[in-house]
Amino acid sequence: MPVPHLAAARSGPIIDLERCIINAMPSIEHWLRNQWQTHTVPFYCSVDLRNSGFKLAPVDTNLFPGGFNNLNPEFMPLCVQAMMAAVEKICADARNVLLIPESHTRNIFYLQNLATLQAIMRHAGLNIRIGTLLPEITTPTTIDLPDGVKLILEPVQRKGNRLVTEDFDPCAVLLNNDLSTGVPPILQNLEQIIIPPLRAGWATRRKSQHFAAYDNVALQFAGLIGIDPWLINPYFASCGKINFREKKGEDCVASTVDEILHDIREKYAEYGVREDPFVIVKADAGTYGMGIMTVKDGSEVRALNRRQRNKMAVVKEGLQVTEVMVQEGVYTFESINEAVAEPVIYMIDHYVVGGFYRVHTGRGIDENLNAPGMQFVPLAFEDTCLLPDREARPGCSANRFYAYGVIARLALLAAAQELEKTGERTGSTV
Amino acid sequence: MPVPHLAAARSGPIIDLERCIINAMPSIEHWLRNQWQTHTVPFYCSVDLRNSGFKLAPVDTNLFPGGFNNLNPEFMPLCVQAMMAAVEKICADARNVLLIPESHTRNIFYLQNLATLQAIMRHAGLNIRIGTLLPEITTPTTIDLPDGVKLILEPVQRKGNRLVTEDFDPCAVLLNNDLSTGVPPILQNLEQIIIPPLRAGWATRRKSQHFAAYDNVALQFAGLIGIDPWLINPYFASCGKINFREKKGEDCVASTVDEILHDIREKYAEYGVREDPFVIVKADAGTYGMGIMTVKDGSEVRALNRRQRNKMAVVKEGLQVTEVMVQEGVYTFESINEAVAEPVIYMIDHYVVGGFYRVHTGRGIDENLNAPGMQFVPLAFEDTCLLPDREARPGCSANRFYAYGVIARLALLAAAQELEKTGERTGSTV
Repeated sequence: MPVPHLAAARSGPIIDLERCIINAMPSIEHWLRNQWQTHTVPFYCSVDLRNSGFKLAPVDTNLFPGGFNNLNPEFMPLCVQAMMAAVEKICADARNVLLIPESHTRNIFYLQNLATLQAIMRHAGLNIRIGTLLPEITTPTTIDLPDGVKLILEPVQRKGNRLVTEDFDPCAVLLNNDLSTGVPPILQNLEQIIIPPLRAGWATRRKSQHFAAYDNVALQFAGLIGIDPWLINPYFASCGKINFREKKGEDCVASTVDEILHDIREKYAEYGVREDPFVIVKADAGTYGMGIMTVKDGSEVRALNRRQRNKMAVVKEGLQVTEVMVQEGVYTFESINEAVAEPVIYMIDHYVVGGFYRVHTGRGIDENLNAPGMQFVPLAFEDTCLLPDREARPGCSANRFYAYGVIARLALLAAAQELEKTGERTGSTV
Repeated sequence: MPVPHLAAARSGPIIDLERCIINAMPSIEHWLRNQWQTHTVPFYCSVDLRNSGFKLAPVDTNLFPGGFNNLNPEFMPLCVQAMMAAVEKICADARNVLLIPESHTRNIFYLQNLATLQAIMRHAGLNIRIGTLLPEITTPTTIDLPDGVKLILEPVQRKGNRLVTEDFDPCAVLLNNDLSTGVPPILQNLEQIIIPPLRAGWATRRKSQHFAAYDNVALQFAGLIGIDPWLINPYFASCGKINFREKKGEDCVASTVDEILHDIREKYAEYGVREDPFVIVKADAGTYGMGIMTVKDGSEVRALNRRQRNKMAVVKEGLQVTEVMVQEGVYTFESINEAVAEPVIYMIDHYVVGGFYRVHTGRGIDENLNAPGMQFVPLAFEDTCLLPDREARPGCSANRFYAYGVIARLALLAAAQELEKTGERTGSTV
């Protein structure tokens, strides 16, 4: 496999960071082990990273990962083993599991993700069925996937406080649906365990809460290995009460943009980075790269045209954007055949089971690669993130992927802390 | 990789057993998950299996596995991930670990096992050094292995109640030494955690205790999937106060042999097996296939010549044999290029991380393949034991290896129960 190339001129500092991580590996793993003892990690998770050569940071942490099909099939055993550990920890007594997928899409790639996830769980010894919330599916429906796999979507029913299908009464419900439009009544007050908890959905979750938790994690980690936390942590701030269509709350966004750009400029000066700073403005709740834009000056926010306003006003399934997060943009300086590449790391429990690159030819190095209608090419990591080699040359894929796995686990830890906090707030512990 | 061939005429029943196991997979994994919640599994373990076509059973459970180098290198990530889980469970706070290898051998294959084990633990984020008990090693000694790896053996010292090397103070001591000659004083009353516990060594351990625990496990498991426990469990009994040189206690051995042969004959008749029953007489404590013989009639025990008596009288490092286990012999009907093959399954914590075949041309299907001076050829499993396929044809390697992984985990569970019992007896909980 061709490994994405890291623009040479900028690779110095990141190789320093990578070397720092490789050298501190025993301390890092020891520290992480202790974290996993004190925090309950999400069942599964994917993290979008950005590697700018001078900075390596998470930009999005997804608690309903939808790209298991993009992982290297050779890592299937690793996924199965991690799944066994996850099930043991979270629902040891479960035997029958009902997977609830996204309703908004019958995208073939997403369906392949479901098939892969189902295969992983089956190999881990679970009876797993896929129950859809789509009202138009009223009988078990078989979908033939291109690789010959048959996926069966079954209509779900509510029986008292249990979610069932016609002939399947699951012990646990696994969500692969991010609940962007809220928690549908059929999922409320179930007596079965729901994984991840409902509050991990975008009806409750806020990116700014995640990155607030990540601030804390990054600070501790940076202290542990003796680096500037900024090298692994993008600046951010949030603004509430926004209405893009009615031009409400724009001042907050514009001034926040300018403040963050100012802070980035100072850091760029400190590290001798010559690029133009930029920020990403995105919906604080939501996903799929909708309601998102790249900005290089606060005035751009005020000068949005109607089309841009409409684009920012809603995310998936028409959910209104009222809160916005402004986040330091991290350039992606990884590229392959001149196409921009962004690593995505997959975890089951706290185990890094693999990753892939989102490769996109039509996008710039300062743009979001997970955009609506985006046709990225997934490029599976050929190596796992588990075999760093202190003796190998810096920047080799084994070491780079290990560093990615470390930063992804920091984001996972932040997600764990974030869910603990929202759990306290809602009085929920599951 | 060529997968060992299973003699066709006899493969019917084992394929039935295999099919039973594959079909019951969710129940099996669910049951095992519950077992791992209630029992503390050994840190690592290897299990020698025998597949006779009509029967699949463990014949030896090693708590100090010495063949990690024989596993498929592609499964390294699986080993690392399982090691992370094991360390987390048993010694989460450990960062520095001292590995104590066997002293009796500087066999190159064994040293490669140490190097592989060290690599696995390093990748799991531990600082791991190898401290030898060999008195002739007085300074750190580097050994160059054929694959270019350098292994450093360091002399160990006792500092108060800590085992250290000159510049390394470990948090934990990992034994890869089976303590056949007893627990050396330098390892007694350490304040560091010792993994596995000292009582897992052959100074304390008895095969008959292990197989007594296995009886119980096999019975429960057989009930779970609805099979005759005999299909996965060899008959056995033990005799004490034996002295082969002085012909003491032979009557017990001879009559036990005949009783077991009688029981096997009944089972063979029940299942229509036409082979000659045989038993294995072996030292109840000890390893390395010394003090072991194949017997087809009790009278053979009384008729041993002097050379045979001497061979049975001692095991590794001159340890006297005073207790003997008589175990139903299980034919190995797996062969490759007409050489006899015996599967060995490796586990870290309760995760099956791989396996290999011991292939031996010079040995019969009713002989022990792990004999002194034996030069077996290891043949790594090409597939993991984690990807059974209900749709695949019975007997394919994925399903066969999964079945092996299941039976090996039963032996692991028996080892856990055995150590719990001996722990209660000695008042030790570690």
